[in-house]
Amino acid sequence: MSELARLEAVTFDVFGTVVDWRTSVAAEAERLLAPHGFEADWERFADAWRARYQPSLTRVRTGELPWTKLDDLHRMNLEQVLVDFGVSGLGEAELDELNRAWHRLNPWPDAVPGLTRLKRRYIIGSLSNGNVALIVNMAKHAAIPWDVVLGAEPTGHYKPQPQAYLGSAALLGLRPAQCMLVAAHNGDLAAAAGCGLRTAFVPRPREHGPGQTSDLCPEHDYDIVAEDFLDLATRLGC
Amino acid sequence: MSELARLEAVTFDVFGTVVDWRTSVAAEAERLLAPHGFEADWERFADAWRARYQPSLTRVRTGELPWTKLDDLHRMNLEQVLVDFGVSGLGEAELDELNRAWHRLNPWPDAVPGLTRLKRRYIIGSLSNGNVALIVNMAKHAAIPWDVVLGAEPTGHYKPQPQAYLGSAALLGLRPAQCMLVAAHNGDLAAAAGCGLRTAFVPRPREHGPGQTSDLCPEHDYDIVAEDFLDLATRLGC
Repeated sequence: MSELARLEAVTFDVFGTVVDWRTSVAAEAERLLAPHGFEADWERFADAWRARYQPSLTRVRTGELPWTKLDDLHRMNLEQVLVDFGVSGLGEAELDELNRAWHRLNPWPDAVPGLTRLKRRYIIGSLSNGNVALIVNMAKHAAIPWDVVLGAEPTGHYKPQPQAYLGSAALLGLRPAQCMLVAAHNGDLAAAAGCGLRTAFVPRPREHGPGQTSDLCPEHDYDIVAEDFLDLATRLGC
Repeated sequence: MSELARLEAVTFDVFGTVVDWRTSVAAEAERLLAPHGFEADWERFADAWRARYQPSLTRVRTGELPWTKLDDLHRMNLEQVLVDFGVSGLGEAELDELNRAWHRLNPWPDAVPGLTRLKRRYIIGSLSNGNVALIVNMAKHAAIPWDVVLGAEPTGHYKPQPQAYLGSAALLGLRPAQCMLVAAHNGDLAAAAGCGLRTAFVPRPREHGPGQTSDLCPEHDYDIVAEDFLDLATRLGC
């Protein structure tokens, strides 16, 4: 713990780490599409939508697309997924409401209690690829007590680009080593560690459902490996 | 109230409107400088420091200076004020601690109780010229429950430039009319109204001390004129 004595801010990946996007999006898709007579395996629908996430970010990272906020990438991807699932005839208001399913994701049960404890001692911030409106609306929906919204939109770069981590620390006026990234994803943590941030791995073995095969275990040396956010709070002295 | 039915976000000027910068900075200057043997009218010291605020912002607004966050403008201004008050010989750590007096401002007594009520129904955000670290650290210091930090640094423009107001609404994914600016300053509110935001004036007749002559009364038509943040919460149905 001594090397963590100067830690000031604990920042978090959000999709999968703080919130359970898969069951939340599946439930929202069913709520909004089933009344129109559409039937599907809604968790497969959520998976198909999410499968288009990284490829769409890559188009921005490479410059193929200009800066595009995640709400707009989600909407482009949604329109493809609706075609793939044979859903048509929705009006603009319905499409927008469905696209904003990502603003209404539900947290894992330990997330808000753990964040509430961590907030007493540290600045707690989102360090997500979600845009500011998405993260703020999700926080209102789920009572997530963020001190600050960091990450992609405030820095103009999608993780794992270094600017997303370094720019987030800079917005807090902190050195990278005064910040920690908490994530359920080895790739995100490796990139943050490469920028000099502290790291904590919290496994979310059901993020991708019962058949998940990735990110079940820590694959690098992290400052902390915690069972959940309550364990993380304890290990950080909260 | 009917025209405010679609209000989603209530945003706030901070210096003077939420916090009493004058007595806070005076107390911090005395706390940090008096032990070194310096004597001054510390409220005059605070006034002198603040008097350099708008001129330094103007240098950024006009492009004479590149984008410079408020912490760095405060520091440039502090060094001038210290010369004017005959203070010398401080080390870097002491200068930085004094400069961060602006991170430790105390709220007016009604501010946090009013914001806490407003937060139940609305997104509440800072829309300040203070940089993100300053606003976040002040919130931790004073338990100000912001949902989001907006304003100058996230938009790259100092109020009253229109981009500061319009960019803040855009970060929330809202139209200007879905946002309200609350301020104790007629000029700030007039600029926000010009961008289509709703407006609320809350007088802070002691912001500049007992001899204040400016901003004692509303000078334009605002959606709301409230006595304090508790009255504002009541008028907004919270």
